[in-house]
Parts: sequence; structure tokens; C-alpha cells
Amino acid sequence: MDIKKFCFGSVMNTEAVVLDIKESNKNDMPYLKIGFQNELTYELKKKDIIYGLGENVRGINKKGWIYESFCSDEFEHTEDRKSIYAAHNFLILQGSEIFGVFIDCPGKVIFDLGYTKGDLMCIKVPENNFDLYIIQGNSLKEIAKNFRELVGKSYIAPKWAFGYQQSRWGYKNKEDILNVVEGFKKNDIPIDGVCLDIDYMERFKDFTIDKEKFGDFENFVKNLKSQGIRLIPIIDAGVKIEKGYDVYDEGVENGYFCVDKNNKPFVAAVWPGKVHFPDFLNEDVRAWFGEKYKYLIDKGIEGFWNDMNEPAIFYTEKSLKQVVDKAYESKDKNLDVHSFFELNDSFLSISNRMEDYKSFYHRVHGKIIRHDKVHNLYGYNMTRAAAEAFEKIAPNKRFLIFSRSSAIGMHRYGGIWTGDNKAWWSSLELNIKMMPNLNICGFIYSGADTGGFACDCTEDLLIRWNEFSMFTPLYRNHSANDTRNQEPYSFSPSTTSALRTIIENRYAYIPYIYSEYMKACMENECYFKPMTFEYEDDNLIEDQLLVGDSLMIAPVYKQNAFGRYVYLPEEMVFWNMVSYQNRSFQVLPKGHHYIEVELEATPIFIRKDKILVLGKHSSCVDYLDNKELDLIAFVDERACYNYYDDDGITKEYNNQDFQFKISIEKKDNDYEIDLYAIENCIVKKLNLTIIDTQGKEFKKELFI
Amino acid sequence: MDIKKFCFGSVMNTEAVVLDIKESNKNDMPYLKIGFQNELTYELKKKDIIYGLGENVRGINKKGWIYESFCSDEFEHTEDRKSIYAAHNFLILQGSEIFGVFIDCPGKVIFDLGYTKGDLMCIKVPENNFDLYIIQGNSLKEIAKNFRELVGKSYIAPKWAFGYQQSRWGYKNKEDILNVVEGFKKNDIPIDGVCLDIDYMERFKDFTIDKEKFGDFENFVKNLKSQGIRLIPIIDAGVKIEKGYDVYDEGVENGYFCVDKNNKPFVAAVWPGKVHFPDFLNEDVRAWFGEKYKYLIDKGIEGFWNDMNEPAIFYTEKSLKQVVDKAYESKDKNLDVHSFFELNDSFLSISNRMEDYKSFYHRVHGKIIRHDKVHNLYGYNMTRAAAEAFEKIAPNKRFLIFSRSSAIGMHRYGGIWTGDNKAWWSSLELNIKMMPNLNICGFIYSGADTGGFACDCTEDLLIRWNEFSMFTPLYRNHSANDTRNQEPYSFSPSTTSALRTIIENRYAYIPYIYSEYMKACMENECYFKPMTFEYEDDNLIEDQLLVGDSLMIAPVYKQNAFGRYVYLPEEMVFWNMVSYQNRSFQVLPKGHHYIEVELEATPIFIRKDKILVLGKHSSCVDYLDNKELDLIAFVDERACYNYYDDDGITKEYNNQDFQFKISIEKKDNDYEIDLYAIENCIVKKLNLTIIDTQGKEFKKELFI
Repeated sequence: MDIKKFCFGSVMNTEAVVLDIKESNKNDMPYLKIGFQNELTYELKKKDIIYGLGENVRGINKKGWIYESFCSDEFEHTEDRKSIYAAHNFLILQGSEIFGVFIDCPGKVIFDLGYTKGDLMCIKVPENNFDLYIIQGNSLKEIAKNFRELVGKSYIAPKWAFGYQQSRWGYKNKEDILNVVEGFKKNDIPIDGVCLDIDYMERFKDFTIDKEKFGDFENFVKNLKSQGIRLIPIIDAGVKIEKGYDVYDEGVENGYFCVDKNNKPFVAAVWPGKVHFPDFLNEDVRAWFGEKYKYLIDKGIEGFWNDMNEPAIFYTEKSLKQVVDKAYESKDKNLDVHSFFELNDSFLSISNRMEDYKSFYHRVHGKIIRHDKVHNLYGYNMTRAAAEAFEKIAPNKRFLIFSRSSAIGMHRYGGIWTGDNKAWWSSLELNIKMMPNLNICGFIYSGADTGGFACDCTEDLLIRWNEFSMFTPLYRNHSANDTRNQEPYSFSPSTTSALRTIIENRYAYIPYIYSEYMKACMENECYFKPMTFEYEDDNLIEDQLLVGDSLMIAPVYKQNAFGRYVYLPEEMVFWNMVSYQNRSFQVLPKGHHYIEVELEATPIFIRKDKILVLGKHSSCVDYLDNKELDLIAFVDERACYNYYDDDGITKEYNNQDFQFKISIEKKDNDYEIDLYAIENCIVKKLNLTIIDTQGKEFKKELFI
Repeated sequence: MDIKKFCFGSVMNTEAVVLDIKESNKNDMPYLKIGFQNELTYELKKKDIIYGLGENVRGINKKGWIYESFCSDEFEHTEDRKSIYAAHNFLILQGSEIFGVFIDCPGKVIFDLGYTKGDLMCIKVPENNFDLYIIQGNSLKEIAKNFRELVGKSYIAPKWAFGYQQSRWGYKNKEDILNVVEGFKKNDIPIDGVCLDIDYMERFKDFTIDKEKFGDFENFVKNLKSQGIRLIPIIDAGVKIEKGYDVYDEGVENGYFCVDKNNKPFVAAVWPGKVHFPDFLNEDVRAWFGEKYKYLIDKGIEGFWNDMNEPAIFYTEKSLKQVVDKAYESKDKNLDVHSFFELNDSFLSISNRMEDYKSFYHRVHGKIIRHDKVHNLYGYNMTRAAAEAFEKIAPNKRFLIFSRSSAIGMHRYGGIWTGDNKAWWSSLELNIKMMPNLNICGFIYSGADTGGFACDCTEDLLIRWNEFSMFTPLYRNHSANDTRNQEPYSFSPSTTSALRTIIENRYAYIPYIYSEYMKACMENECYFKPMTFEYEDDNLIEDQLLVGDSLMIAPVYKQNAFGRYVYLPEEMVFWNMVSYQNRSFQVLPKGHHYIEVELEATPIFIRKDKILVLGKHSSCVDYLDNKELDLIAFVDERACYNYYDDDGITKEYNNQDFQFKISIEKKDNDYEIDLYAIENCIVKKLNLTIIDTQGKEFKKELFI
């Protein structure tokens, strides 16, 4: 593996990297030039492609914009933004040469990718202390894999987390939740989880449950679980200032909170009102805070989402005072327009101010560090706190955990969702383009708020979005409390029916999705890949993705579109899938195609000499019965598939091999099938559909 | 012509309609059902298409969203918005039946086009007083044309307004303007106009000139005009309250301003600070305000843009007091998060409040009318005031005038630009999709802020955007003062060169663009048309447009894309144009194509049996020499073209026929050319390139 490390200044260990790479001499640095203030530059050609930067705006190809890694509670994910919730400082350049760059740095990093000058990539680290890794390899895939070895294996979610999750900021009490569950049951729609947003807590206090709205929580959790449904509560970063509240009291007593310049716990305001921020960069604090999750785990909870952990700051006492004073000054004054805009802007910029991030401190290994210099590690270490605690609480159990803020390193501890998007077609498009870059940066368990968080969803958008989200490991419908309801049964009967079928498709695809996900995590591969990762000589296609080893998808993401263009880099089998139960396959030649795609259809493409594995749907993951599987193979010469399945609950994957391998080889007028089954294989029967390049189908049954 | 009129309640005459249509009995209403509170409903099929609504968000097909006609100073043109600056209440439904609907109403109209219920179009007029016109015809084109006959001929701009215009909020004085002009001259980039944003005025007062920054304005105007460059000043709706300022004094003295409920001139705050709004709905006020344009006309000005005429309201004394009081109340209080958001929201919603629109009044024909009930007529009548004045000041001269706010009716008096867009690729996409709907509603002279008004532009976006804007009648690069400079020479030399060539292309295309524009205005046709207007049996293609009678365009509007898909509804000639001077033609068959499009290339398609007319570029429109023209004809059987040209300055088009007709007919192995030239024809020579369906080119010269 060819990874070179170069050190600039002296930087705090972010623990993003797990390999011990020796520092190289900067004179031997390939590709990049070091300029003024250690700016790293590279001359761009017009058609160079830059992959990576994970969670960010714009396309798969990041060329042509300036990005800033500085985790931001940014609800506008429009093209003009420079950073959203994450700091994913890895990119791969593909041009006349290919190489990867990882900036290991806890503070702000600026990636000017041909913005200021069209032909220049320029990476700047304002604090000037960072480690640079240059990752080489013979292909895009190899570079991505080498990088993943550098930063360590990705978090592995439990299998139930591949079921459908329903969420909404606005389910206010047990009755609301039961109504949702009933909506799914009545409409026969599979579901595995309901997320609890901030309302379940007592005055938004972490690790509390509102007794009035969610009384007898333990039995409530148990009862739902008996129906196959898990509750997934939110945990926010800020701890409410309230005497008598154990988390607050213990934190103050032990000095576990970030402090201001007077060494007093720093005060910010978020959902609970005034809060302190736990100093997650300190391992004692992580151990303490992590242990708090046990309160909910003891009540039967097996999954969480960590939110507001950039950390978001609605306001501080100082920023509010400034604004209120300014407003007060203008009282009864004949405000001119300039002063009006100044006042208005001061309100608009009251949240998440750099000034506030510069006014609190962490204590790490006896050192005092100002927050802004290590800002990007905050959400990372909050989620690490949880994951490290889970490991202690139940060492062999997998918990679901996904975070809003993240940095590379956190990918070992949890997944992410992509934050507060909107019910816009362009948010769906962004979701599609973001997934492969998240995977390249190690975030495999991820997905967006299906249907959009803010703004009102339309039924066609919800259908199209589900047709994409059915492939994302995290498959969650989430929306804000002042928007139109967007549960799958909230629209017309025909929409309910379409969504039911799509969600059923997801469950039938879990054997494939889970198998590909697990292999991606264990073998440092990508689950979502840009097309160019397998077809390197082709142009990058921004709106088609490879899903696992066997599939290509081409989602429809435009309103009122009943078809789209697709480029096939090789012959593929096209399945214009409405229901997974109705199968009709067509071999399409390499090249450009226009395909008709009805609103209810999800176009699926099976790659040549690859195999798709399908099961049957059920009402939830726990009830899936995958003893019998359908294999759909597109065979020109020889197709292989390594099928992975396990209990989905324990970490036995560390100890046992759960893969069986099947190969289907064309021999004269027949196919030779080789099966390398494992011991105690759950699967008992395989139903093979083999499609040849003429489109002829051969059926075979195989008993294991 | 088949137009039916139905009256609901009693509505003020908006003067949108110029034909006298007799009211029909509602029992005979075709297509629509009348429901509760006069809601008009129509059952939608899944693939019905709804064209129209002019300036609005989303696609050419408006189906699947809810729109509100209520002219709004809305700088976010994202998918969740319901109204932007205009009220264009005309739509055409295409499904198993086709028909047009025009709601003639001065107040809010709600178009729920399959949003609340996917299969229902529902039009609501909250005030319940409106005239409904149902427009029939045998084709989409015919319905659109019939509608245009109903509402009267569109405004005709002078020919120089087809030149390139440079604009920026931030050109602060003569020196800034001269620097811009020098930038164009030095870089040999054609230009016809520089827009003056609010800074040219004295304290933002209409019809004043800042003597310090723009002293000796008359000579400045004259000097620039001698270089072929016209200045185009902005005029805002609000009149600054300032004693001694003639417009203010006269307005107060004569009672020309809108009044509050105490009959005092209503006070709002916009750029000049406190202002009054002229009561443009009153014809005496229009005559008075319009006459003021003479102040600038006398200084040599020939073009204007009317802004802030929704009317925009930054704040009123009342709204500011409410917010400041609220802030004051929270001083030194331990604000909870709920109260914080309330305070914050009150700031965010201080502008353009419905409450404020309900608190001032117009006096029309002796009647007092509350503003909100006639809100959509305000910008319309401001521009009408100007146009009516121009008619008096110089009856035979064409002035350039374009407005931000508009309603159908105003299309007879001026053009529009599409308001404060952003330097987003999605704003370019919206621009492309909006143009045909603007044309359908009668707004032919229009265009967007090329490069984007807000946010920082990238050079590739600017290039791609110019490749589209080179076809829009209004071709203006405009940006906000806090953004990156985006004049065509502000980036790298290669970008300057690419933009120079595109702008040169525009000037070479003016013979075609102007000819098609003039015919569209005079014959009630569309200059930009959806593909389905000529190929009605095909699917609607959202990102290809017909430009005039001969061309189809397929702009590239995605970052880092060097190609795109194109559907040809019939055989066409494809010209991947970089410079108009280098010509290479390829006949492409009907069907789907992927075409490579370099960053500098503009894909042009010439329709079958159609002719493209090209001239040569010059430094400005006045210097164009079109005595010799190139005709590029794609001839299968017989191609005709009606070429229109006139002096571009006067209104002689009302009196004379300026068209000559040419037809090229295939005869055996040759072509028969018929020319019906007009008297005193300016054109002396035609260079014909005839392309047959085999792609073979024949050259001919023709002297007139």
C-alpha cells in the first residue's frame, strides 16, 4: 500500500488514522506543490475529476467550487454553501494522474477546487498545523480502499437498521407514535423503527423521558418491539442547565463541560434553552456521557441518533445581548435603511457564530484548546462516546447509531444522516450525488431524510425519493413539524399503494443490500460507487450509481418525468421494476438509452457476469425468512457472487466466515454451477434465473 | 376564435383584456366544474401537462405544485416558493383535451395544480370576484395565439436592446462605469448598454442624479452613446419622503400617493428610507409620474428598468416597532428557545407583510380600494405610466423598459427581467424552463440576470449561462454588490475569450433573433416555445426549447458536463457552434442522441425545411452591417423564411411591411429559390448554404 505522510506544524492527534505511517520528507512529495503558508496546489486540467469531500453540496465531481471543512448546522444545502454538517477531508483526483489526498486536521480546511482559478486546486489550512496523506494506487477503487485501510473499518449497523424507519419532528406523545404504527399496520406497510425527535424528553434534557407524554416508557418500548418495531430516540449535544438534573449536576461537579475563558462552564442556547457542552474530546467525559445511554438501553432501546453536535448554537448570552441592545438602540429612532439591514443581519447571523466558537475551550490530556481549532472533532467524539459505551454495556451487540455532525474517524463509530434537507427535487438529486462521496470517505451506513425534512412534500416526489432510498442503508422518512405529513399513507390510496410496493421491494432486496453493505464494511469497499470506479475510461455520470457489486441504478429525480436517459458502459440486464415479484428482463446493449419509467417503477440494471440476490418481503426485518433466495444472474461467461448473511445482532462477523460463494459458468448450452457453502448455512434453497446475452432465461433450483 | 367569458362577482377592470367578449352562461362552461366558493376544478390524468403561469418556480410543466399569484419581492426562487414577482394567471392544459384558462383578477389567485390532490386541478380566488376566460383552439399554439389576441399585442423593444447589457449593483460612480466600458473595449467585447442601479441617484430618489458621483450626466450619456453604449437607469416604485424634493412635494400636494386608513400618505421603508407609494392605479398619477421620466430622457436616456414595484416593503413603522418592542421586552430576560424563535421569526418576516399590504389604499375612479385586493396591478401600472409617457414624449420612438413586477396586461407596455436569481446552476435551469411560459403569457422581451444576481459566480457557470442568454431578447449580466465580479473579462484570459466569442455570436444572430422577436410580437406568436408546441404528439422535454421558427436549442446547464442528451422529434441539422464564423453541420436523425458539448460550445439545431439567418458581429447594434446575410437552410422539400428587419428605432412597423420572403425548394438536383423582396430592402446580398438530408452542402449567392 502506498501512502505517504507529510507533517506541517504540530497537530493534535485526531485519531482519524489507524495505521502508523512514517513521516516522509516534503521534498519527496508527489503531485502537490507547497506554496506560501503551506498552501498545497495542483494544476487542474479542464476535464479532471475530483471525488470525495463526503457530505457536501454540488455534484459527485467537486471541481469548480470552494469548500470549507467546518462542521456547520446549515439547513440550506444550496450550491452557494461551502460547508454543511461534516468535515470529510479526503479527495481523489482523476486526470492524467490519479491520487488521493487526506488532510488530517481538527480545524478548518479550505478546498479551493478550481474556484478562484479555474486551473488550480489549492488546499489551505488557516491554522497551518496538519498532517497530509497522499494515497496512491492503480485505480480509483484501489486508492479509495487504501484510504479506508488508513482510517480503519467502518461502523457496522445491526440488520434491523436496514428496515424502513419512520420519523417526524412532531410525534409528540405515545398516542402519536401508536397512530403512526397503526397507519403502517392498517396499510400493510413494512416498518422496523420509529424515531423519537426531541419531544420525548422532559424539557429537552438528554437521557430523560417526559413522564406525561411518554409514561411507562419501558412497556411502550417492549410492546412495540413485540410488533417488530424499535424506537430510536434522539440525543442532543447540549446538556440543559438545571439544578437537580443528574447529567447537569455530575457534569458541573466533575468539570466535564467545555469552559469559557474564565474557566466557567460555557453557556449556549439550543433546544433546552441554556446548556453546557460536554467536553467530548476528553476521554473521561466520553466515558461518563456514553454511560448515560444505558438509561435508555435499560428501557429496551437499541438505536439512537445524535443531533445538534456541530455543536449547533442558536445563540449565546453575548450574541443575544448584542442584538437586543442594537434593537433597543433603534427604538423610536428613524432608522435608515442601512441601519435596518445591519439590525436585520445581526439577527440573521446570531446562530453558530465563529466568535462564539472561539470563546470556549476543551481540556485534552491536560492541555487547554480553544474550540474553533478542534471544532470538527466534536460530533465525531460525541458519537464515539456512545459507541465506546455500547462496547462496554454489551460487547457483542450491535447498536444503531447515526449522527448529524461527523468527521473522518467517526466512520468507525457510527453512521450519519445527511441533515436538514428539503422536500425539493434538487435535494433528492443532491442525495443521489452525495452517497458515493460519503462512501469514499468511509460513511457506509447513511441516507437522507426521505421526502425532505423542511418544506411540503408532494406525492410524486415522495414516490421518486423512496425509489432511491430503498437502496440506501439508512432508509428513513423524516420531516419537520410545520410541514405537510409525509408518512407513506398520508396521500391518496394510489400513492399509499405505490409506496407500500417500494418499501416491500426494499425488504425483498435486503439479502443483497445487507450482503453488499457487510462486505463493503469488512473489506473497505464502497457500497455506493460512481460509475467510473468500475468503468474508469468512461465519462463520469453524475446521476447513475453502482450499488454493491452487481447493480447499477438510474433514479428518476425530476418532477413530471416518466423516463430518463441512461448510459450503459457495457451490456446489462434492465429490469423496470414495479414490484420485485413481477419480473421482466431485457438485455440492453452498451451505449446510450432513453428508458420509459412510470412513476411507480424503479429501473434496475444487473451488470454483466453479476448476480442479484432477492428474498421476500415481510412486515419487518426480524420476520424476514431468507431460507429460500432468488438469484438473478446475467451470465456471459462466468458470474460469481459472495453472499453474506449473519444474525445481524451480534459481532460474530469478527470470528466466523458467513459468506457462501456461488459461481455460474456458461458451458456449451448449459451452465455449470459451483457452490461453496458454509457450515450451518441458513439458506436452504436457491431459485436461479440465468439470463444470457440474448435475453434467454434459464431457470434452475438448487438445494443446499 | 373561441374564447368564452364567465363572470364571478364583480371585479375591477384590470385592463388586461383588449377584446370585448360577451359573458356566457356558467351552465355552458366547458372543462371546469364550479364548486364551493366558486372553486374551479378539473380532474387531472397522470400525464396531463400544464403550461403557463409565466414567471414562476419549477418546470415548464407546472403540474404537481401549488402556486399563488401575488407579486412578491422574493429572492429565493426555490421549489418551495409559491409566488415570485409576477402574476401571470394564464395556463394551458394538455391532456385528453386541450384548453386555456385565464383568470382576470387584480388580487390573489391560487392555482393548486395537483398538489393537494394529485388528480385534481383547483383554482381558487379568495376574494371571489374575477372574470374567467376559457380559451379554445385546435392546438397548443392556436390557444396561446388566441389568448394573446385577447390580451393585446406585446411591447416592442428598440433594436439596440438586443445588444449585450452589463450591469451590477455596485457601479458607484462615473469612474466605475468608465472602467467597465474600458474593460469591454480593451477586450474587444461587444456591448450596447450599461445599467445603472440605485447608486446613480441622490439618496435613492427617483428622477435625481447624484451630482458628486455622476456630475455632468448629460455629457457622460452623450459621450458613451458616441461609443455605441447606452445607459439604462433604474427607477424604483417608492418616492422618498423629503421636503423640497419635487416628486415628493408634488405627490403630497396633489394627493398622488396611496393613503393609509386615516387618508394620510402611507409610509413604508425601502432603499431611500421612508417613502410613499405613487397610486399608479389612478390615471392622473400615471400621467404625472410618467412625465417624470422626461427628466432623464432629456439627458439622453432611452431605456429604463422599473424595480421594487411589487411594491417591495422592507418594513413599515408599525412592523419595525413591533419587532423592536419585542426585542426590547426580551432585554435582560432569560429568553427561552420558543421566545427566541418568535423574536427571530418576527425579524425574518418583517418585510412584505400581508398586514402591511392591507393597510393602504388606492383611489380609482372615485372609489377607495384596499391595496391587497388589487396588489398585482401595481408594478403593471408603474410600467404603464412610463410607457404612456414615452408615447406622449416621443410618439414614434421606441424606448427600452423592463420591469421586475408584472401582470398580464403589462406585457403591452414593457418587458421584464426575472428578478433576483442566484449564481446557481439551478437558476440557469430555471431560466431555461421559465422562458417559454413567459412567452405564452405575452412577455416576449425578457431574460434573467445572466451569471446570477446573488452569490458568487464561477467561470464555467458564466460561460454556460451566456450560451443560453445569447438567445434571450434581454441579454444582461447583472450581479449584487457583495458578490464576486462577473463581467466577462473578470476571470481568466481563456474565459474572457470564450465569453467574447459567445457575445459575438449573439450579435451575429441578431438578424435572426430580432426578426423572430418582431414577428412574435406582431403576430402574437411565441419566440421561445416548448417543443410540444410544434411536435404535439411527443413528450414534453423540459430542457430543450424552440427559438423562433427555425431553431431548437439544448443548453448545457450542469457543472462539469461536457455533453448532454438531446431528443430530435425529426431530422435536424446539428451545429456544435463555438464561433458563428466556423461552421460545420451534421444531419442527425430523429430520435435520442448524446452529444459532446465542450465548455465553449453552443449546440444549435436547425429544423427541417427551415432557414437560419446570420449576420456578422460588431461592437454594438448601431454598428451592425447586415447588408449581406448568410442563410443556412436545411431543405428536404421546401424551406421558407420571412425575414423581418427595420430601423429598430421608430414604430414604422405599424405602417410598413418590413418582411421579405424567401423560399428554397428542392427541384431534381438543384434548388429553386424564390425571393419576394420588399421595396428599399436594406439587404443586398444573400449567401446561401443549403444542406440536404444527406448532409451535402450547396452554396449559392443571391443579389437583391
